[in-house]
Amino acid sequence: MVAEARFEARTRTYQYLRPAPEQLRAAALDGLELLQRVMDGQFPMPPMAATLGFTLVAVERGRAIFEGTAAEWQYNPLGSVHGGWIATILDSALGCAVHSSLSRAEGYTSTDLQVRFLRAVVTGSGVLRAEAHVVHTGKRIATAEARLFGRDDSKLYATATGACLVLAP
Amino acid sequence: MVAEARFEARTRTYQYLRPAPEQLRAAALDGLELLQRVMDGQFPMPPMAATLGFTLVAVERGRAIFEGTAAEWQYNPLGSVHGGWIATILDSALGCAVHSSLSRAEGYTSTDLQVRFLRAVVTGSGVLRAEAHVVHTGKRIATAEARLFGRDDSKLYATATGACLVLAP
Amino acid sequence: MVAEARFEARTRTYQYLRPAPEQLRAAALDGLELLQRVMDGQFPMPPMAATLGFTLVAVERGRAIFEGTAAEWQYNPLGSVHGGWIATILDSALGCAVHSSLSRAEGYTSTDLQVRFLRAVVTGSGVLRAEAHVVHTGKRIATAEARLFGRDDSKLYATATGACLVLAP
Amino acid sequence: MVAEARFEARTRTYQYLRPAPEQLRAAALDGLELLQRVMDGQFPMPPMAATLGFTLVAVERGRAIFEGTAAEWQYNPLGSVHGGWIATILDSALGCAVHSSLSRAEGYTSTDLQVRFLRAVVTGSGVLRAEAHVVHTGKRIATAEARLFGRDDSKLYATATGACLVLAP
Repeated sequence: MVAEARFEARTRTYQYLRPAPEQLRAAALDGLELLQRVMDGQFPMPPMAATLGFTLVAVERGRAIFEGTAAEWQYNPLGSVHGGWIATILDSALGCAVHSSLSRAEGYTSTDLQVRFLRAVVTGSGVLRAEAHVVHTGKRIATAEARLFGRDDSKLYATATGACLVLAP
Repeated sequence: MVAEARFEARTRTYQYLRPAPEQLRAAALDGLELLQRVMDGQFPMPPMAATLGFTLVAVERGRAIFEGTAAEWQYNPLGSVHGGWIATILDSALGCAVHSSLSRAEGYTSTDLQVRFLRAVVTGSGVLRAEAHVVHTGKRIATAEARLFGRDDSKLYATATGACLVLAP
Repeated sequence: MVAEARFEARTRTYQYLRPAPEQLRAAALDGLELLQRVMDGQFPMPPMAATLGFTLVAVERGRAIFEGTAAEWQYNPLGSVHGGWIATILDSALGCAVHSSLSRAEGYTSTDLQVRFLRAVVTGSGVLRAEAHVVHTGKRIATAEARLFGRDDSKLYATATGACLVLAP
Repeated sequence: MVAEARFEARTRTYQYLRPAPEQLRAAALDGLELLQRVMDGQFPMPPMAATLGFTLVAVERGRAIFEGTAAEWQYNPLGSVHGGWIATILDSALGCAVHSSLSRAEGYTSTDLQVRFLRAVVTGSGVLRAEAHVVHTGKRIATAEARLFGRDDSKLYATATGACLVLAP
């Protein structure tokens, strides 16, 4: 391949834990308890978090925070972190904020995500924090909003909102 | 770590090419020519595409198609492909559709992305195709829409729209 | 009031029909039949359509078209038709497209609306057509997309997408 | 018309002031000064606000509040206030929040609006307040978010986000 001759190839290796949704369900925990166990390492962090290099760092009822560090392997062709990385960490925070507000009997599924990209993220941006909180919980729909900002400098990089369908038994 | 004891750890290794935005700019190609060279392997596919396992498979003026295969390392904790993977392949198609419609002198940056998740993607979903086309190109803003569907069964998994700021010299 | 002295006051008078949701429900029609009767004048056009000067002009299973004419009383302070007028005619088309695809037993409620404003609408824009079609109908969520364009010149003014919760008995 | 025979027709008459965008521009005020004069009655409230029955009640740098009262002539066919009324009051608040943060030399135009409908508004909902604030102001794009809630009971009815293109001279 021409490109591999002209452009520098790099290798990345990472580990993820096989997802275990049945075990999660069997644990019969509410959303907050379950996410706390994910943070403790008793339940596996989702594979996608390992793939993209971010992690759940805080959760309480209706709130969740993820952190990750910008890296070259997250880049788009334009020389900054791909909007999809930004969308994914925000979507994770939104989903967990909603999940943390659900009872043991409820499940959820995301129905939509809207992200506004405000500033380019580059490797020098350091540790990014995605913080989400629930705005509304109805019988069928829950909505949340989130922000992505520099953990150390509070620079705002993106905002997002999302909706989930709440699945009652 | 408890989780690593109880949950199966897996390792993934992949290669990506170091992004070369200066070389891309130096090439002084319009968006379509540049993306065709990415497809030919003359220019590097973006690192994020390697990280998430999808690739640009077709491009013409105002249209772009990416394909990728659902895999376990893309999963969320709920037992399906993370919405962020879906958002990223759609965002890539939207961005390239807009890029393919720009002249040599123009650049772009995504301002927002909206994704609607219609159906869960699982490993059995096979090859997914994200197809985008430009809806509007103004002097300052371009918009595009995209769909994610099964390449072989045409099942619709998600839709998206996005806007880009067109940066004229 | 100073403003009324300095700025020309105009009066607008219009008629609307009192909404009759109980009668609509009692008619036990599916969405398409019901909307056809609205078009025929057997059921009342919604008050908001009279208030904003647009009307349902065509409906078939999964599709709906509204038309309205740009007017000064729809203006924002910037000298063009308010984005809210554009949002409302598009939302009406989206809602009716979804409604037209529902059975007698199903109801719906809009959960979100996203509008992209592409070009200013002014009084000279003439008759505007908002055309919507359903993209996805699931058990719980239906989505649709719509465009607003000049009926006579096909100029594209705005696009929109929306989601509805489908309420089964 | 059959419908007019069977359904009760009502008449609404209201006054609006002819928009005067040239005079607004000629005043050479920054956004906040201009909106304060609209509130004072020195400049005309936009026609669309009169058409839909809401008004700007407070503005400061980067923030704006509109209020309106739910009424039957705002209804959709389902027996509640049309989502378009909700979208329009929120869009007005979003636009004015952005406008209030702009200098004398800058203009703006809305590029998109996203609304999430959380609860039905009915005539008994009373006075509704749409409150918006700017989230980000860049050189070219400004974004804002808004909420619609009961003025007296703080019930949350809808949320919205919007983006504007900032037009520098």
